[in-house]
Order: sequence, then C-alpha cells, then structure tokens
Amino acid sequence: MARPTLASLATELGVSRQTISNALNAPDRVRPATLKRVLDAIEAAGYRPSAAARQLRTRRSMNLGMRLLPATDGINGSILDRFLHALTESAQAAGYRLTLFCADTDDDEVRQYEQLLHVAGLDGFVLTSSRRDDVRTRWLQEHGTPFAIFGRPWGELQRDGSARHPWVDIDGAAGTAEAVTHLVRQGHSRIGFLGWHDGGPVGDDRRAGWEHAMRASGLSEHISRLRISTPDTIAGGVSGGRKLIERDATAIVCASDSLAIGALESLRELRPRLFLPGQPAGPGLRAAVVGFDDTPVAAALGLSSVAQPVEDAARHIVRLLTYELAGYPAAGTMPDESLLLTPHVVERVPLPLAPPA
Amino acid sequence: MARPTLASLATELGVSRQTISNALNAPDRVRPATLKRVLDAIEAAGYRPSAAARQLRTRRSMNLGMRLLPATDGINGSILDRFLHALTESAQAAGYRLTLFCADTDDDEVRQYEQLLHVAGLDGFVLTSSRRDDVRTRWLQEHGTPFAIFGRPWGELQRDGSARHPWVDIDGAAGTAEAVTHLVRQGHSRIGFLGWHDGGPVGDDRRAGWEHAMRASGLSEHISRLRISTPDTIAGGVSGGRKLIERDATAIVCASDSLAIGALESLRELRPRLFLPGQPAGPGLRAAVVGFDDTPVAAALGLSSVAQPVEDAARHIVRLLTYELAGYPAAGTMPDESLLLTPHVVERVPLPLAPPA
Repeated sequence: MARPTLASLATELGVSRQTISNALNAPDRVRPATLKRVLDAIEAAGYRPSAAARQLRTRRSMNLGMRLLPATDGINGSILDRFLHALTESAQAAGYRLTLFCADTDDDEVRQYEQLLHVAGLDGFVLTSSRRDDVRTRWLQEHGTPFAIFGRPWGELQRDGSARHPWVDIDGAAGTAEAVTHLVRQGHSRIGFLGWHDGGPVGDDRRAGWEHAMRASGLSEHISRLRISTPDTIAGGVSGGRKLIERDATAIVCASDSLAIGALESLRELRPRLFLPGQPAGPGLRAAVVGFDDTPVAAALGLSSVAQPVEDAARHIVRLLTYELAGYPAAGTMPDESLLLTPHVVERVPLPLAPPA
Repeated sequence: MARPTLASLATELGVSRQTISNALNAPDRVRPATLKRVLDAIEAAGYRPSAAARQLRTRRSMNLGMRLLPATDGINGSILDRFLHALTESAQAAGYRLTLFCADTDDDEVRQYEQLLHVAGLDGFVLTSSRRDDVRTRWLQEHGTPFAIFGRPWGELQRDGSARHPWVDIDGAAGTAEAVTHLVRQGHSRIGFLGWHDGGPVGDDRRAGWEHAMRASGLSEHISRLRISTPDTIAGGVSGGRKLIERDATAIVCASDSLAIGALESLRELRPRLFLPGQPAGPGLRAAVVGFDDTPVAAALGLSSVAQPVEDAARHIVRLLTYELAGYPAAGTMPDESLLLTPHVVERVPLPLAPPA
C-alpha cells in the first residue's frame, strides 16, 4: 500500500486537510474522537514514524529512564543488577520499557533528564538511590516530572512531616539489628560493626541499626570501641576486620558483602581455631561474620548475609510510577506512597578452611 | 512563551501552513533546508513532544533495543550484566541509549521487534546470543532492520562462505584449549570436560576446544571417557565432577563457573589430599579445576577461570551498529565485519579448605 498523503487521508476520513494537520501539529484543537481517527489511520497505513504520531497523541512514549551506575567489583554492585532485571520485567508487564543512561555526577544526571525528556521523549524516571539535599529529586519536582525512587527522602520532609515525593526503600537498620540479635543468640557479646567510609545516609542507617540493637541487648559499653569504617572493598574488610579483632571483637556485622569477605579472611587469619572443623560447637564458632546483600559470593563462601527484597521494591516502584503516569486514577487503586520493606538475615555456615600451614 | 500555533509558526518562518503540515506529515515533500528550519523552530519553541518532531525529521530515535534475559543464579548470568554495563556506556558515548525489553521465547522476541520498531520507534537491536537457524536474525534481515549480534552466525553462511550479517564473538574453544594446555603444564593428563546439557553451539564449541587440545597434547585416549554433561548448576557440577573423578580424572575443565564450583567441591570431597595445605607441590595439587567466565565467585574461591573480554565485544557491537545506522559512511572507517576475540585463563590457587572432620 502506498504511503498516504495528506490529501488521500483527508478524502479517506472525510475531514479537511487542516484537521489532519492540526491532529499532528496542534492536537488540542481537534475533537478527541476525530484526533483518534486521524492518528489511527496514519498508524494503520504503516506510516513508519508512527511512534511520533502516537507520542503526539498520547504525549507518552511508554518509556522510563534510569541511570545505570558503573559496574563495580561484581559483589556490591550485583544487588542493583538484580533490581534492574526485576524492574525491567515489572515495567514491561505494565506496558513500559526501561531506557538506560550513564551519568558521571548528579548534576550530569540532571542535565541528562532535560535531554531525555525533551529530545528522547521519556515519560519519567526511576532513581536507584537518594541523598540528603538531593539535586535530582528537587529538579524533577520543580519540573513536574514523574519519578519514583528506590531510597528514602533523607531529611527532605515537608512541614507536616510527610515526604515530598513517593518512595520505596529497604530498612537497612532493621537488617543490621537482626544480625546483632542473631549473633547474641549464638553467645557473642563483643560484636563489631564494619562500615564504609563516607557511607552517606544508607551507611549511617546500617550503623544505627547495629548501635540500637547493641544498646537493646545491654552491650552499649562496646559501641564506641568496636565501630570502624574503611573503603568498601575486600581489602578494606581485611584491614578493618584485623583492627576489630585486635580490639577483641569475636563477631562482625558488615555494611556490605565485600567488607564481610575481607572480615571473614581476617578472622580466619587471627582466630583460626574458630574455624577448625570438628571443634565442639560453642560461642564464636559459627557465622561470626554477617554481610549485607546476600550476594552469590556470600552464598558460595558460606557467609551469613542480610538479604534485601529488591524484587518487591522494583514492583512497588513500577506501581508508584505508573499510577502517577496514568494521572492518579481511582483513589481505591492508589499504591502506598511510601513503603519500607524489611530485609532478613540468611544464616550460613562458613566453609571449613584449613589454617595456614 | 506561548506554544506556537500553525499560523504563528508559518508567519514567523515565512512559509505556508501547508509547508509546516508537510514537514510533519510528509517530510519528503519539503526541501531539506526548509524541513530543518521548520522542525528546529518547533523544537526551539519548547513544544513538548519534540522527540516526535525530531524522529519525523531524522527518522531516528537514537535508541537501541536489547532483550534482557531473566536473572540467573547470579553466577552464570553475571557475564551478561557486565556486557550490559559496557554496552550502555559505549552506546551513550556514540549518542545512543539502550532500551531493555523481556521476551519468553525467540518468537516472542520477534513479535516485540515489530512493536518496538513501529510503536516505540527504536533504530535497531543488539542480540546477545545466536543460534543455529536463528528466527530472529532471519526476521531482522528480511525486514532490513539494523542489528548487531554478540555471537557467531553458526552455520548461517552465504554461498561464498561469508556471514550473512556482521558479528562479534569470543572464541570459547580457544579458552578451553588454553585451560587444557595450562593443566598439562602442571603435569595433568587425565583432564575431563564438564559441559552443560543442551549446550547448543556455544557449549559444543567449548567442548570442541577441549577435545582439540587433548588430541594436540597426545591425550586422545581419554576423550570419550572423560566427557560429561549435566544441568548448568552447582549441583550439576558436583554430580558430574564425581563421575569424572570416579573415572579417574585428576583435573576438570568446565563450561561455566557454576559447574566449576560444583566440580571443585566434588574433588575436595573425593580427593581431599590434593587440597591439604603444606603438601609438596606436585602434579594435581593446584588449580585442578578451571571454570569459564571469571566471575566474582570464582575469584573469591580461588578458582582458575577463562576470562571473556566482554567489554571489548560491547565496544565493537556499538561500532558495527552505529556504522550501519549512519548509512555506511566512508569505507576507511568501516569496522571489521566479524571479530573473534580471544579469552584467557586467569590462574588462581584454590582456598585451602580443611577436609571434612
């Protein structure tokens, strides 16, 4: 079939050329029913850039944007890859695609929002972390751009105490607190916390959960001595773990699995007897290190770790964003405006490594 | 600034309303210079769906599609997540974004191509694997859709022996062959191969590399006995590893790191003396298992593994696809139409696990 011309379309539809032109150029001048007929006809004729016609009609591309953070050591970053898979699947089930972009800084991310909205025509954004004084959420709100965020609006509350925008997050403090309870149950009392340098609000939150549970367990005396932060790497975990063990810690709660892998190594190095097979089970013998994120590496090494329900978080993010994009339809279908999910410790027994010869 | 109307734009630009309508509706009727002026003016005025105007002008969305495979055990799938990060970065450097979609089957993937081309307006696709008699590459070629593929066109050659489309791949057979050479150098001769059930052409290729190197090393006699395939999981690796060890294998080359983790476990279980620390170094003592993909789990366990240069593959994929999308510009800038990259064994010493008590 030949591509329709303005004239052939006008004849076919029994409308004026001006109406067709308006449908494409000034759609709000055309009655909705006519607009739909004209654009459907253009699309049905297989006119190639029908995405353009559809966008002009619905003002929506059915496309959401998300910044992809750089690949990491494959341990700490893997939780975000899991989130990405779940988000893509949930978005597709709701009729949306996910478009990825890279940014060097938050300011760069904001510059890209402009381009992605006005040139690529994206409908909204998913943010995978929040900060205090977040330039990104501020920009998005000021420009009325739909977005949903995996992360709490740290400190960004309105006068009545409610959040300035909807969010989903995972309660890191509850995770580290559960790790402490779990170690106390095994007989530990000198339980250290190994966090990352410049942990930001997420790191602070994980440390706060440990502190709170230490106090609740009557172990306040150890808090100031057994709290260390290092770079968030395996090497950082080794050096931080050594310091905590020298200060007599028998167990370590870590803010990440990378740190926990290092801490486990330092415990094996300095307290090899804790890991000898065939020892009578007693305090300090088992699972003396707890990581965070429950990565495949933690599973392979027999490392206990706090598992985050990122798939649930992704589903709720899509619910929030599609609800806003649909124009806040019926009040009865409104998803929770804020949702704090609870993580849980997965308990494992470390591999019985032989002591160094 | 008020949104321009057809009339105000026509006055501003000194063209007829019909010209503006044509620019949007039948751009090939408008002289290129005029078309550019009209669409630039619409965009400059901040008219919201400027993506649509741009698409109508360039017929390009600067957006590439890729099917995201479901998340796996976090071990075997992680290589594709690394590829995704590298691809997003390379695409962005070339001015393109990456849009993800999910599909249940290859036929479903093809159905989505249609929708993504004609509704979402994508420019082309990246495929992350190839098969024999691939319905997807056939559809894309028949429809003249630009695409580039990470994977060889297995068997899909033209009469002159050249491929029907450009591709990038990694030489799996070279990787498993290097693993054999590496084990022979350590004194092993009874080197088994543990592949996955229904490995397809990729699995066949990895097994062929092992066979070829066994023959080249004068070890043909072991080939038929020491070749096993199992489901591609850690549990599959344990059971397959046991069978190979019972057939007297002292070393095992694996088609994946999941299999290798299992095989290492079976070797530790049935041949614990090979892993005792402080043993005099001798044949069979070290790195008796080699995995494939060099995942973070392999690194953490001290497992040798074949490392794939997926970042190089992603860069070349973008080169191929953007060259085609740019309309095959100057012959001098043409990227290689097919590129087979060589992987390499990363050697490690397994963690000195204690024998079971």
